[in-house]
Amino acid sequence: MRTLGVLGGMGPAATVAFLARVQALTPAQGDADHIRVVMDLNPQVPDRNTRPGEAEAELAAMALRLKTVGAEVLAMPCNTAHAQKAGIEAAGLPFIDMIAATVAAVMPHNAGGVGILATPGGEALYRAALEAEGMRPVLLEGTDRDAFMACVYGVKRGDSGADNRAAMQRLAGALIAAGAGAVIAGCTEVPLLLAAADVAVPLVDSAEVLAQACVVACRA
Amino acid sequence: MRTLGVLGGMGPAATVAFLARVQALTPAQGDADHIRVVMDLNPQVPDRNTRPGEAEAELAAMALRLKTVGAEVLAMPCNTAHAQKAGIEAAGLPFIDMIAATVAAVMPHNAGGVGILATPGGEALYRAALEAEGMRPVLLEGTDRDAFMACVYGVKRGDSGADNRAAMQRLAGALIAAGAGAVIAGCTEVPLLLAAADVAVPLVDSAEVLAQACVVACRA
Repeated sequence: MRTLGVLGGMGPAATVAFLARVQALTPAQGDADHIRVVMDLNPQVPDRNTRPGEAEAELAAMALRLKTVGAEVLAMPCNTAHAQKAGIEAAGLPFIDMIAATVAAVMPHNAGGVGILATPGGEALYRAALEAEGMRPVLLEGTDRDAFMACVYGVKRGDSGADNRAAMQRLAGALIAAGAGAVIAGCTEVPLLLAAADVAVPLVDSAEVLAQACVVACRA
Repeated sequence: MRTLGVLGGMGPAATVAFLARVQALTPAQGDADHIRVVMDLNPQVPDRNTRPGEAEAELAAMALRLKTVGAEVLAMPCNTAHAQKAGIEAAGLPFIDMIAATVAAVMPHNAGGVGILATPGGEALYRAALEAEGMRPVLLEGTDRDAFMACVYGVKRGDSGADNRAAMQRLAGALIAAGAGAVIAGCTEVPLLLAAADVAVPLVDSAEVLAQACVVACRA
Protein backbone atom coordinates (compact mmCIF):
# COMPACT_ATOMS: atom_id res chain seq x y z
CA MET A 1 0.00 0.00 0.00
CA ARG A 2 1.19 3.49 -0.80
CA THR A 3 0.66 6.65 1.25
CA LEU A 4 -1.62 9.24 -0.33
CA GLY A 5 -0.69 12.91 -0.03
CA VAL A 6 -3.67 15.27 -0.27
CA LEU A 7 -3.38 18.96 -1.13
CA GLY A 8 -6.63 20.14 0.40
CA GLY A 9 -8.60 23.07 1.70
CA MET A 10 -9.93 24.32 -1.65
CA GLY A 11 -12.48 24.21 -0.14
CA PRO A 12 -12.35 22.61 3.30
CA ALA A 13 -15.74 20.87 3.18
CA ALA A 14 -15.00 19.40 -0.24
CA THR A 15 -11.73 18.00 1.09
CA VAL A 16 -13.42 16.25 4.01
CA ALA A 17 -16.08 14.84 1.69
CA PHE A 18 -13.30 13.58 -0.56
CA LEU A 19 -11.55 11.80 2.33
CA ALA A 20 -14.85 10.14 3.25
CA ARG A 21 -15.23 8.92 -0.34
CA VAL A 22 -11.74 7.46 -0.40
CA GLN A 23 -12.62 5.49 2.73
CA ALA A 24 -16.02 4.42 1.40
CA LEU A 25 -14.38 3.11 -1.79
CA THR A 26 -11.68 1.18 0.13
CA PRO A 27 -12.55 -2.46 0.83
CA ALA A 28 -11.85 -2.71 4.57
CA GLN A 29 -12.63 -5.06 7.43
CA GLY A 30 -10.79 -2.90 9.95
CA ASP A 31 -8.61 0.17 10.42
CA ALA A 32 -5.43 -1.36 9.01
CA ASP A 33 -7.01 -2.02 5.59
CA HIS A 34 -7.39 1.72 4.99
CA ILE A 35 -5.00 3.93 3.07
CA ARG A 36 -2.62 6.13 5.01
CA VAL A 37 -3.26 9.77 4.12
CA VAL A 38 -0.99 12.70 4.85
CA MET A 39 -2.80 15.94 4.19
CA ASP A 40 -2.29 19.65 4.15
CA LEU A 41 -5.75 21.19 4.35
CA ASN A 42 -4.73 24.75 3.59
CA PRO A 43 -7.68 27.13 3.27
CA GLN A 44 -5.25 30.03 2.82
CA VAL A 45 -3.84 29.06 -0.59
CA PRO A 46 -3.83 32.33 -2.59
CA ASP A 47 -6.78 32.78 -4.94
CA ARG A 48 -6.25 30.57 -7.98
CA ASN A 49 -8.09 33.00 -10.27
CA THR A 50 -6.58 36.32 -9.20
CA ARG A 51 -3.11 35.28 -7.93
CA PRO A 52 -2.19 32.18 -9.95
CA GLY A 53 1.58 32.56 -9.59
CA GLU A 54 1.45 32.80 -5.82
CA ALA A 55 -1.01 29.91 -5.72
CA GLU A 56 1.33 27.74 -7.77
CA ALA A 57 4.29 28.53 -5.50
CA GLU A 58 2.26 27.64 -2.41
CA LEU A 59 0.97 24.40 -3.94
CA ALA A 60 4.54 23.48 -4.91
CA ALA A 61 5.69 24.03 -1.32
CA MET A 62 2.77 21.95 0.01
CA ALA A 63 3.63 19.09 -2.35
CA LEU A 64 7.25 19.08 -1.24
CA ARG A 65 6.28 19.07 2.43
CA LEU A 66 3.89 16.16 1.87
CA LYS A 67 6.74 14.29 0.19
CA THR A 68 9.01 14.87 3.19
CA VAL A 69 6.40 13.30 5.50
CA GLY A 70 5.96 10.18 3.40
CA ALA A 71 3.49 10.85 0.58
CA GLU A 72 4.07 8.51 -2.37
CA VAL A 73 1.15 9.56 -4.57
CA LEU A 74 -0.35 13.07 -4.68
CA ALA A 75 -3.91 14.19 -5.32
CA MET A 76 -5.74 17.50 -5.04
CA PRO A 77 -9.55 17.54 -4.72
CA CYS A 78 -9.89 20.94 -6.41
CA ASN A 79 -10.42 21.13 -10.16
CA THR A 80 -9.72 24.84 -10.56
CA ALA A 81 -6.28 24.57 -8.95
CA HIS A 82 -5.24 22.02 -11.56
CA ALA A 83 -4.25 25.02 -13.69
CA GLN A 84 -1.30 25.20 -11.25
CA LYS A 85 -0.47 21.51 -11.40
CA ALA A 86 3.05 22.09 -12.77
CA GLY A 87 4.07 23.33 -9.32
CA ILE A 88 2.80 20.13 -7.74
CA GLU A 89 4.40 17.85 -10.32
CA ALA A 90 7.75 19.51 -9.63
CA ALA A 91 7.84 17.53 -6.35
CA GLY A 92 8.61 14.48 -8.50
CA LEU A 93 5.82 12.24 -7.18
CA PRO A 94 3.03 10.68 -9.24
CA PHE A 95 0.17 13.22 -9.31
CA ILE A 96 -3.29 11.93 -10.19
CA ASP A 97 -4.75 14.50 -12.58
CA MET A 98 -8.41 14.96 -11.67
CA ILE A 99 -9.31 16.63 -14.96
CA ALA A 100 -7.77 13.89 -17.11
CA ALA A 101 -9.28 11.12 -14.98
CA THR A 102 -12.74 12.71 -15.14
CA VAL A 103 -12.60 13.22 -18.91
CA ALA A 104 -11.61 9.57 -19.30
CA ALA A 105 -14.57 8.58 -17.11
CA VAL A 106 -17.06 10.63 -19.14
CA MET A 107 -16.06 9.10 -22.49
CA PRO A 108 -18.45 6.11 -22.27
CA HIS A 109 -21.25 8.62 -21.64
CA ASN A 110 -20.38 10.90 -24.56
CA ALA A 111 -23.77 11.45 -26.17
CA GLY A 112 -23.76 14.59 -28.25
CA GLY A 113 -22.43 17.10 -25.75
CA VAL A 114 -20.88 17.03 -22.31
CA GLY A 115 -22.09 19.62 -19.82
CA ILE A 116 -19.60 21.24 -17.46
CA LEU A 117 -20.44 22.48 -13.98
CA ALA A 118 -17.21 24.23 -12.98
CA THR A 119 -15.67 27.56 -12.07
CA PRO A 120 -14.43 29.63 -15.03
CA GLY A 121 -10.91 28.30 -14.44
CA GLY A 122 -12.01 24.70 -14.12
CA GLU A 123 -14.32 25.05 -17.11
CA ALA A 124 -11.40 26.17 -19.29
CA LEU A 125 -9.44 23.06 -18.27
CA TYR A 126 -12.38 20.73 -18.96
CA ARG A 127 -13.23 22.46 -22.23
CA ALA A 128 -9.70 21.98 -23.56
CA ALA A 129 -9.48 18.38 -22.34
CA LEU A 130 -12.88 17.42 -23.81
CA GLU A 131 -12.09 19.03 -27.17
CA ALA A 132 -8.72 17.28 -27.27
CA GLU A 133 -10.67 14.01 -27.06
CA GLY A 134 -13.14 15.06 -29.74
CA MET A 135 -16.03 15.70 -27.36
CA ARG A 136 -18.27 18.76 -27.47
CA PRO A 137 -18.37 20.83 -24.26
CA VAL A 138 -21.70 22.37 -23.23
CA LEU A 139 -21.23 25.43 -21.03
CA LEU A 140 -23.42 27.48 -18.71
CA GLU A 141 -24.48 30.72 -20.35
CA GLY A 142 -25.16 34.27 -19.21
CA THR A 143 -26.43 34.80 -15.68
CA ASP A 144 -26.25 31.04 -15.04
CA ARG A 145 -22.48 31.43 -14.80
CA ASP A 146 -22.85 33.82 -11.86
CA ALA A 147 -25.58 31.62 -10.38
CA PHE A 148 -23.14 28.70 -10.38
CA MET A 149 -20.50 30.66 -8.50
CA ALA A 150 -23.14 31.77 -5.99
CA CYS A 151 -23.88 28.08 -5.30
CA VAL A 152 -20.18 27.33 -4.80
CA TYR A 153 -19.61 30.25 -2.47
CA GLY A 154 -22.73 29.18 -0.59
CA VAL A 155 -21.11 25.81 0.16
CA LYS A 156 -17.94 27.58 1.24
CA ARG A 157 -20.08 29.59 3.70
CA GLY A 158 -21.54 26.34 5.03
CA ASP A 159 -24.79 26.43 3.05
CA SER A 160 -25.74 23.06 1.61
CA GLY A 161 -29.43 23.66 2.20
CA ALA A 162 -32.47 22.95 0.04
CA ASP A 163 -32.46 26.28 -1.83
CA ASN A 164 -28.81 25.96 -2.78
CA ARG A 165 -29.37 22.35 -3.85
CA ALA A 166 -32.34 23.36 -5.99
CA ALA A 167 -30.28 26.09 -7.64
CA MET A 168 -27.52 23.63 -8.59
CA GLN A 169 -30.09 21.14 -9.89
CA ARG A 170 -31.58 23.87 -12.08
CA LEU A 171 -28.12 24.60 -13.55
CA ALA A 172 -27.60 20.93 -14.42
CA GLY A 173 -31.01 21.07 -16.12
CA ALA A 174 -29.93 24.09 -18.15
CA LEU A 175 -26.96 22.14 -19.49
CA ILE A 176 -29.21 19.23 -20.46
CA ALA A 177 -31.62 21.64 -22.19
CA ALA A 178 -28.63 22.96 -24.13
CA GLY A 179 -27.79 19.49 -25.42
CA ALA A 180 -25.69 17.81 -22.76
CA GLY A 181 -26.07 14.03 -22.76
CA ALA A 182 -23.86 13.80 -19.69
CA VAL A 183 -22.81 16.33 -17.04
CA ILE A 184 -19.44 16.66 -15.33
CA ALA A 185 -19.53 17.77 -11.69
CA GLY A 186 -16.26 19.56 -12.32
CA CYS A 187 -15.93 21.43 -9.06
CA THR A 188 -15.58 19.58 -5.75
CA GLU A 189 -18.32 21.71 -4.19
CA VAL A 190 -20.88 20.43 -6.73
CA PRO A 191 -21.43 16.95 -5.21
CA LEU A 192 -22.14 18.61 -1.85
CA LEU A 193 -25.29 19.96 -3.54
CA LEU A 194 -26.06 17.53 -6.35
CA ALA A 195 -26.44 13.74 -6.48
CA ALA A 196 -26.63 11.52 -9.55
CA ALA A 197 -30.33 10.96 -8.81
CA ASP A 198 -30.96 14.70 -9.19
CA VAL A 199 -29.84 14.72 -12.83
CA ALA A 200 -31.69 13.19 -15.80
CA VAL A 201 -28.47 12.22 -17.64
CA PRO A 202 -25.30 10.53 -16.30
CA LEU A 203 -23.51 12.73 -13.76
CA VAL A 204 -19.75 12.15 -13.71
CA ASP A 205 -18.49 13.44 -10.38
CA SER A 206 -14.85 14.50 -10.48
CA ALA A 207 -14.44 13.96 -6.71
CA GLU A 208 -15.72 10.39 -6.98
CA VAL A 209 -13.51 9.71 -10.00
CA LEU A 210 -10.45 11.06 -8.18
CA ALA A 211 -11.22 9.10 -5.00
CA GLN A 212 -11.55 5.88 -6.99
CA ALA A 213 -8.29 6.57 -8.82
CA CYS A 214 -6.54 7.20 -5.49
CA VAL A 215 -7.77 3.90 -4.06
CA VAL A 216 -6.52 2.05 -7.13
CA ALA A 217 -3.16 3.85 -7.12
CA CYS A 218 -2.50 3.41 -3.39
CA ARG A 219 -3.65 -0.19 -3.02
CA ALA A 220 -1.80 -1.39 -6.13
CA MET B 1 -4.68 31.60 13.47
CA ARG B 2 -2.59 28.56 14.34
CA THR B 3 -2.16 25.39 12.28
CA LEU B 4 -3.71 22.26 13.78
CA GLY B 5 -1.79 19.00 13.55
CA VAL B 6 -4.03 15.91 13.68
CA LEU B 7 -2.77 12.44 14.56
CA GLY B 8 -5.51 10.41 12.93
CA GLY B 9 -6.57 7.07 11.57
CA MET B 10 -7.61 5.48 14.87
CA GLY B 11 -10.03 4.89 13.27
CA PRO B 12 -10.23 6.48 9.84
CA ALA B 13 -13.97 7.23 9.81
CA ALA B 14 -13.79 8.83 13.24
CA THR B 15 -10.98 11.08 12.04
CA VAL B 16 -12.97 12.32 9.04
CA ALA B 17 -16.01 12.93 11.26
CA PHE B 18 -13.76 14.90 13.60
CA LEU B 19 -12.46 17.10 10.77
CA ALA B 20 -16.05 17.80 9.71
CA ARG B 21 -16.88 18.85 13.27
CA VAL B 22 -13.93 21.21 13.47
CA GLN B 23 -15.20 22.89 10.30
CA ALA B 24 -18.80 22.97 11.49
CA LEU B 25 -17.71 24.68 14.71
CA THR B 26 -15.57 27.27 12.90
CA PRO B 27 -17.36 30.54 12.16
CA ALA B 28 -16.62 30.99 8.44
CA GLN B 29 -17.89 33.06 5.55
CA GLY B 30 -15.43 31.49 3.11
CA ASP B 31 -12.49 29.13 2.74
CA ALA B 32 -9.90 31.46 4.27
CA ASP B 33 -11.73 31.64 7.62
CA HIS B 34 -11.12 27.94 8.22
CA ILE B 35 -8.28 26.46 10.24
CA ARG B 36 -5.32 25.01 8.41
CA VAL B 37 -4.98 21.32 9.28
CA VAL B 38 -1.97 19.14 8.66
CA MET B 39 -2.86 15.51 9.28
CA ASP B 40 -1.33 12.09 9.34
CA LEU B 41 -4.24 9.67 9.02
CA ASN B 42 -2.32 6.52 9.83
CA PRO B 43 -4.51 3.43 10.06
CA GLN B 44 -1.41 1.28 10.63
CA VAL B 45 -0.44 2.59 14.08
CA PRO B 46 0.39 -0.55 16.10
CA ASP B 47 -2.41 -1.81 18.35
CA ARG B 48 -2.64 0.44 21.40
CA ASN B 49 -3.80 -2.42 23.63
CA THR B 50 -1.40 -5.18 22.63
CA ARG B 51 1.69 -3.23 21.50
CA PRO B 52 1.65 0.00 23.54
CA GLY B 53 5.39 0.66 23.33
CA GLU B 54 5.48 0.42 19.54
CA ALA B 55 2.33 2.51 19.33
CA GLU B 56 3.91 5.25 21.45
CA ALA B 57 7.04 5.30 19.29
CA GLU B 58 4.96 5.61 16.12
CA LEU B 59 2.79 8.38 17.59
CA ALA B 60 5.94 10.23 18.68
CA ALA B 61 7.33 10.04 15.14
CA MET B 62 4.00 11.23 13.69
CA ALA B 63 3.95 14.22 16.06
CA LEU B 64 7.48 15.21 15.10
CA ARG B 65 6.67 14.99 11.39
CA LEU B 66 3.57 17.12 11.83
CA LYS B 67 5.73 19.69 13.62
CA THR B 68 8.18 19.77 10.69
CA VAL B 69 5.33 20.58 8.28
CA GLY B 70 3.98 23.45 10.34
CA ALA B 71 1.68 22.11 13.07
CA GLU B 72 1.49 24.51 16.03
CA VAL B 73 -1.12 22.69 18.12
CA LEU B 74 -1.60 18.91 18.19
CA ALA B 75 -4.75 16.85 18.71
CA MET B 76 -5.59 13.18 18.38
CA PRO B 77 -9.22 12.09 17.91
CA CYS B 78 -8.71 8.72 19.62
CA ASN B 79 -9.30 8.38 23.35
CA THR B 80 -7.62 5.00 23.80
CA ALA B 81 -4.33 6.21 22.32
CA HIS B 82 -4.13 8.93 24.96
CA ALA B 83 -2.43 6.30 27.12
CA GLN B 84 0.54 6.95 24.81
CA LYS B 85 0.34 10.73 24.95
CA ALA B 86 3.81 11.11 26.46
CA GLY B 87 5.26 10.22 23.06
CA ILE B 88 3.24 12.97 21.41
CA GLU B 89 4.04 15.58 24.03
CA ALA B 90 7.75 14.90 23.49
CA ALA B 91 7.42 16.84 20.22
CA GLY B 92 7.25 19.98 22.34
CA LEU B 93 4.00 21.37 20.92
CA PRO B 94 0.82 22.10 22.86
CA PHE B 95 -1.24 18.87 22.85
CA ILE B 96 -4.95 19.17 23.57
CA ASP B 97 -5.74 16.29 25.94
CA MET B 98 -9.10 14.86 24.88
CA ILE B 99 -9.64 12.99 28.17
CA ALA B 100 -8.97 16.04 30.34
CA ALA B 101 -11.11 18.31 28.14
CA THR B 102 -14.01 15.82 28.19
CA VAL B 103 -13.87 15.35 31.96
CA ALA B 104 -13.93 19.15 32.37
CA ALA B 105 -16.97 19.29 30.07
CA VAL B 106 -18.87 16.64 32.03
CA MET B 107 -18.46 18.36 35.41
CA PRO B 108 -21.55 20.59 35.07
CA HIS B 109 -23.56 17.41 34.37
CA ASN B 110 -22.19 15.45 37.33
CA ALA B 111 -25.35 14.00 38.83
CA GLY B 112 -24.58 10.96 40.94
CA GLY B 113 -22.52 8.94 38.51
CA VAL B 114 -20.92 9.43 35.10
CA GLY B 115 -21.30 6.61 32.60
CA ILE B 116 -18.36 5.75 30.34
CA LEU B 117 -18.69 4.32 26.84
CA ALA B 118 -15.08 3.52 25.96
CA THR B 119 -12.65 0.76 25.13
CA PRO B 120 -11.00 -0.91 28.15
CA GLY B 121 -7.96 1.33 27.67
CA GLY B 122 -10.00 4.50 27.28
CA GLU B 123 -12.22 3.51 30.19
CA ALA B 124 -9.19 3.23 32.47
CA LEU B 125 -8.12 6.76 31.51
CA TYR B 126 -11.61 8.20 32.10
CA ARG B 127 -12.07 6.30 35.34
CA ALA B 128 -8.86 7.71 36.79
CA ALA B 129 -9.58 11.24 35.54
CA LEU B 130 -13.17 11.23 36.89
CA GLU B 131 -12.10 9.87 40.29
CA ALA B 132 -9.35 12.48 40.49
CA GLU B 133 -12.10 15.11 40.20
CA GLY B 134 -14.29 13.41 42.80
CA MET B 135 -16.79 12.01 40.31
CA ARG B 136 -18.13 8.45 40.38
CA PRO B 137 -17.55 6.45 37.17
CA VAL B 138 -20.28 4.06 36.03
CA LEU B 139 -18.91 1.24 33.89
CA LEU B 140 -20.37 -1.31 31.51
CA GLU B 141 -20.58 -4.74 33.14
CA GLY B 142 -20.20 -8.32 32.00
CA THR B 143 -21.16 -9.15 28.42
CA ASP B 144 -21.98 -5.49 27.75
CA ARG B 145 -18.24 -4.84 27.66
CA ASP B 146 -17.86 -7.23 24.72
CA ALA B 147 -21.01 -5.85 23.11
CA PHE B 148 -19.46 -2.38 23.18
CA MET B 149 -16.32 -3.54 21.41
CA ALA B 150 -18.48 -5.32 18.81
CA CYS B 151 -20.17 -1.97 18.07
CA VAL B 152 -16.79 -0.24 17.70
CA TYR B 153 -15.36 -2.89 15.40
CA GLY B 154 -18.58 -2.71 13.41
CA VAL B 155 -17.92 0.98 12.69
CA LYS B 156 -14.34 0.15 11.74
CA ARG B 157 -15.75 -2.38 9.21
CA GLY B 158 -18.00 0.37 7.83
CA ASP B 159 -21.20 -0.63 9.67
CA SER B 160 -23.08 2.36 11.07
CA GLY B 161 -26.44 0.78 10.36
CA ALA B 162 -29.63 0.63 12.39
CA ASP B 163 -28.79 -2.59 14.28
CA ASN B 164 -25.40 -1.28 15.36
CA ARG B 165 -26.96 2.04 16.39
CA ALA B 166 -29.61 0.26 18.43
CA ALA B 167 -26.94 -1.81 20.16
CA MET B 168 -25.02 1.30 21.21
CA GLN B 169 -28.20 2.98 22.40
CA ARG B 170 -28.98 -0.06 24.56
CA LEU B 171 -25.51 0.18 26.15
CA ALA B 172 -26.05 3.85 27.02
CA GLY B 173 -29.33 2.80 28.59
CA ALA B 174 -27.54 0.16 30.67
CA LEU B 175 -25.26 2.85 32.11
CA ILE B 176 -28.27 5.03 33.00
CA ALA B 177 -29.99 2.04 34.63
CA ALA B 178 -26.81 1.58 36.68
CA GLY B 179 -27.00 5.15 38.00
CA ALA B 180 -25.35 7.35 35.39
CA GLY B 181 -26.75 10.89 35.35
CA ALA B 182 -24.57 11.72 32.34
CA VAL B 183 -22.77 9.59 29.75
CA ILE B 184 -19.38 10.18 28.18
CA ALA B 185 -19.02 9.13 24.53
CA GLY B 186 -15.42 8.27 25.30
CA CYS B 187 -14.47 6.59 22.05
CA THR B 188 -14.52 8.47 18.74
CA GLU B 189 -16.51 5.68 17.11
CA VAL B 190 -19.42 6.21 19.55
CA PRO B 191 -20.84 9.40 17.98
CA LEU B 192 -20.95 7.63 14.61
CA LEU B 193 -23.66 5.45 16.20
CA LEU B 194 -25.18 7.57 18.97
CA ALA B 195 -26.59 11.13 19.05
CA ALA B 196 -27.49 13.20 22.10
CA ALA B 197 -31.17 12.72 21.22
CA ASP B 198 -30.76 8.94 21.61
CA VAL B 199 -29.83 9.22 25.29
CA ALA B 200 -32.13 10.19 28.17
CA VAL B 201 -29.36 11.99 30.13
CA PRO B 202 -26.74 14.50 28.91
CA LEU B 203 -24.31 12.88 26.44
CA VAL B 204 -20.85 14.45 26.51
CA ASP B 205 -19.17 13.58 23.23
CA SER B 206 -15.38 13.54 23.47
CA ALA B 207 -14.99 14.19 19.71
CA GLU B 208 -17.20 17.27 19.91
CA VAL B 209 -15.38 18.53 23.00
CA LEU B 210 -12.00 18.07 21.31
CA ALA B 211 -13.16 19.75 18.09
CA GLN B 212 -14.43 22.74 20.05
CA ALA B 213 -11.16 22.97 22.00
CA CYS B 214 -9.19 22.86 18.73
CA VAL B 215 -11.23 25.70 17.25
CA VAL B 216 -10.64 27.80 20.37
CA ALA B 217 -6.90 27.00 20.48
CA CYS B 218 -6.27 27.63 16.78
CA ARG B 219 -8.34 30.77 16.39
CA ALA B 220 -7.01 32.40 19.57
